[in-house]
Amino acid sequence: MHVIDHHDLPAAALPGIEHRTLAGRAQGLAHLSVWQQTIAAGATTPPHRHDCEEVVVVTAGRGRLLIDGDAHDFGAGTTLVIPPGVAHQIINVGEEPMSVTAAFSATPVGVFLPDGQPLPLPWES
Amino acid sequence: MHVIDHHDLPAAALPGIEHRTLAGRAQGLAHLSVWQQTIAAGATTPPHRHDCEEVVVVTAGRGRLLIDGDAHDFGAGTTLVIPPGVAHQIINVGEEPMSVTAAFSATPVGVFLPDGQPLPLPWES
Repeated sequence: MHVIDHHDLPAAALPGIEHRTLAGRAQGLAHLSVWQQTIAAGATTPPHRHDCEEVVVVTAGRGRLLIDGDAHDFGAGTTLVIPPGVAHQIINVGEEPMSVTAAFSATPVGVFLPDGQPLPLPWES
Repeated sequence: MHVIDHHDLPAAALPGIEHRTLAGRAQGLAHLSVWQQTIAAGATTPPHRHDCEEVVVVTAGRGRLLIDGDAHDFGAGTTLVIPPGVAHQIINVGEEPMSVTAAFSATPVGVFLPDGQPLPLPWES
């Protein structure tokens, strides 16, 4: 399957976060996963970290990245680079939904709380 | 540098293709590269293949993917999955520019003609 219609992909959610895994292990990949998420105004990811590199392309909205003890504000037309193992949190600080496309250098993507506890997710990654 | 404004990134081009590398080795990554491209109406990539996995998220326009001897038409809201080493070509078959965000499981990204000759690109990958 080389062409995937996003409407054919399962949708999942966490509170305030709509998610689709656009491609990953289920599509035959071994080293790459791509997610699409929309984060509601005021909503936030939990603080978390991954066991792989992450690149987040921000396509709509305004947000704040908490990482390394700093806060970085961003808007559409920016890209976030998250190194492996570094705890981070993304907050929608705008009044509109924030949309992102995120790429990871692994599939499935390991997601952990800052203390190292695995963070179960309601989607295939 | 965790937040990158796309306007601060160098723009590059091939005939009919506008390109920005949103993140890759220059941003400290080792196993992941993310590109953003706009392909003009009627323009096409060369037939080529990579030494890594590729996922292309189509954000605007209409195109055709040539791969494995087949042609697959697609539009915005689809994702293309290209396995390593498989020759492919993307054509804008619409009347509007086609925009894509592409993720690769390597950085730099090896790009080759179908016969294996390296394809030099005018951008850092």
